Amino acid sequence: MKIQRVDQSTTFKRTVEVGKEKEQKIVESIIKEVRDNGDDALFRYTRELDGAELTQLKVEPTELEEAYQHIEPNVIEAIREAIHRIRDFHQRQVTQSWMTTKADGVMLGQKVTPLDRVGVYVPGGKAAYPSSIMMNIIPAQVAGVGDIAMVSPVQKDGKLPAGVLVTANELGVKEIYKVGGAQAVAALAYGTETIAPVDKITGPGNIYVALAKRAVYGVVDIDMIAGPSDITVLADETAIPSHVAADLLSQAEHDELATAILVTDSEELAEEVSKQVELQLSSLPKEAIARASIEGQGKIYVTKDLEESIDTVNQIAPEHLEIIVQNPMEQLGKIRHAGAIFLGPHTTEPIGDYFAGPNHVLPTEGTARFSSPLSVDDFVKKSSVLSYSKEALLAQADAITTLARLEGLEAHARAVEIRLGDEEND
Amino acid sequence: MKIQRVDQSTTFKRTVEVGKEKEQKIVESIIKEVRDNGDDALFRYTRELDGAELTQLKVEPTELEEAYQHIEPNVIEAIREAIHRIRDFHQRQVTQSWMTTKADGVMLGQKVTPLDRVGVYVPGGKAAYPSSIMMNIIPAQVAGVGDIAMVSPVQKDGKLPAGVLVTANELGVKEIYKVGGAQAVAALAYGTETIAPVDKITGPGNIYVALAKRAVYGVVDIDMIAGPSDITVLADETAIPSHVAADLLSQAEHDELATAILVTDSEELAEEVSKQVELQLSSLPKEAIARASIEGQGKIYVTKDLEESIDTVNQIAPEHLEIIVQNPMEQLGKIRHAGAIFLGPHTTEPIGDYFAGPNHVLPTEGTARFSSPLSVDDFVKKSSVLSYSKEALLAQADAITTLARLEGLEAHARAVEIRLGDEEND
Repeated sequence: MKIQRVDQSTTFKRTVEVGKEKEQKIVESIIKEVRDNGDDALFRYTRELDGAELTQLKVEPTELEEAYQHIEPNVIEAIREAIHRIRDFHQRQVTQSWMTTKADGVMLGQKVTPLDRVGVYVPGGKAAYPSSIMMNIIPAQVAGVGDIAMVSPVQKDGKLPAGVLVTANELGVKEIYKVGGAQAVAALAYGTETIAPVDKITGPGNIYVALAKRAVYGVVDIDMIAGPSDITVLADETAIPSHVAADLLSQAEHDELATAILVTDSEELAEEVSKQVELQLSSLPKEAIARASIEGQGKIYVTKDLEESIDTVNQIAPEHLEIIVQNPMEQLGKIRHAGAIFLGPHTTEPIGDYFAGPNHVLPTEGTARFSSPLSVDDFVKKSSVLSYSKEALLAQADAITTLARLEGLEAHARAVEIRLGDEEND
Repeated sequence: MKIQRVDQSTTFKRTVEVGKEKEQKIVESIIKEVRDNGDDALFRYTRELDGAELTQLKVEPTELEEAYQHIEPNVIEAIREAIHRIRDFHQRQVTQSWMTTKADGVMLGQKVTPLDRVGVYVPGGKAAYPSSIMMNIIPAQVAGVGDIAMVSPVQKDGKLPAGVLVTANELGVKEIYKVGGAQAVAALAYGTETIAPVDKITGPGNIYVALAKRAVYGVVDIDMIAGPSDITVLADETAIPSHVAADLLSQAEHDELATAILVTDSEELAEEVSKQVELQLSSLPKEAIARASIEGQGKIYVTKDLEESIDTVNQIAPEHLEIIVQNPMEQLGKIRHAGAIFLGPHTTEPIGDYFAGPNHVLPTEGTARFSSPLSVDDFVKKSSVLSYSKEALLAQADAITTLARLEGLEAHARAVEIRLGDEEND
């Protein structure tokens, strides 16, 4: 891996994905087709793009039952345990409505209401990720969303992968549709004969899915549009090089465009990790992908001390941050930007991908400066609540009308004043 | 006003603003110029577009002092009182970091961190709104944002409006820049010699500002892009027609494109309000604007009962909702979508625009289905925190590696397994 000394002139690139024109045009035409022709368009795109001839989009209960025959009991157990832990964590994120009352008859509050209906996109392709289903659907369920519709591209045999079906069934998802790509996003946003429109679409996908989500944003809400995944390991001389290398590679195997970074004040660790990465790379099934990632974006930053290491981490604003230093908890307060923070030598990042409980949908590409992990908050909205007595309105009328007139809004002032006089004046 | 009976076929239009091509091109070229030429570009656009020749962008303390001479003491008092109330409400929105510990040595939590630096856009033009400054800056301050930069288009005389300066000074804003339009948004996103880049841009503006915010979204975060304002009044026969009419007009005077709607099960109220609107319109200073709004978008929906009224409101998903019926509090739980809810006959909507405390930046155009008022939450981000003991990792290793391999991610499994063995193996 490339080793680089950090100094004041070191800059940290933040790539932000931008739409590609050719794909953009394709996505626009797909959305238009789905809006115009509904289910017919979905069947046609599924035939043309996924190579499957369907007569029905919705998954039948019998398909769910059949899927269980292809999944080992220990895998089902692991899925159930993961669901349990993820649900437990997200339940702690629930926010309550609140209301304050004052003696003068003013009541103010905030009402929390779940979204009515949400669509979750589950990618297909080489790796259909059951964890992605859990991470998107559990926060919506915990928030109290009434209707959840799941969409996923169908295989050539007309089926969804067994792992996807079993996971969805374990979660209690009632609506699963065999449709993917931009056409699935368009169907969720605008509705078709079979698929009722939703209020928000979440879940990862390829460039077509990302562009389609961006295109329908405003008609519906969307979650963040994630870029390639990244990890930064902040380590000192106490870290075990082979462990650090394994963690870097666990991110690198995701994607040629993934980023794995080590920040350390130990030159020795830097050298050792670099060697270990090379050593471990050669035995990985996904060596080609991981090697492209390490050679393309992988980097080891050597700093003069822990303080400079932390400053470097804050400039990177990583999606995943491991802290493998003495007393990691002491450094936690100094970390200003990170999607998820893994503390200490045993908290390897993959723990967070499937199992521990926190969400694995995290801000990428430096957006941890202003974005948060997917959470229950993403599936509720808030309404302000105000209630004034006549006495309260009387007491505050002068100030309110003064400010209204300062802004040149006479009708605002009159809406207050009309209430101050004789109530027979209508 | 148009009166229409609601039935099952009634549909409720949701307009979503889309970018215009000509303006889009102008905005793109402005952003490029600011990125390439920094302050020079800002001075040039301010000369060309605002008609003011500046030598300095940042407002000096002497300018703030001078502004106080143009504002009456009772106005300053009203501003201070509004700030106090708005701050008090927003302080109740603060979320705490939390951490849970389990006996097996697993610690999980959520760390809340304020954004580092935020930019607030304050529109100029006919009505410079002090309330808009308060509503954007107070939640950022309560969240603990370190740096807040305010930008606002300068008047031809090279000054900002006195009301804007006094309000900003009362809030303790230290950085105020005389620059507006797409150029101000570009400066906040990318930085210039004078203006350091921010992490998030909030605040309303014209079409150029809105398109510029959309263009820089991803480089920085933005708040929602608001459409024209709207109000829905849900009333029964107990409502006083003149009051309802005054409330509808207070929204209509904002903008020709504003929407004012009455939903009622009382045909008599419908008729009376329609007459009152006409009566009150003729004496309004902004009669032309309000009339265009009422004639363009204004509507009275007559329903068969309260239940149908509430269902209609939920389909509209209004920005502002007044509930003027018997026992308004009893209906609150049935309202699923509204930005702000004003309960009872005395809670006229203008109370919420300036003074009561809740934010006036609210979801428009039916987006209350999935969006919330601007809040302290918009100025913090969260990080998940995980910490595992070796025992906890050992206990869960099987399930974690099973799930990793189900997803075909061998390096993930190995990052766990390398920690299970002899720690000397590096």
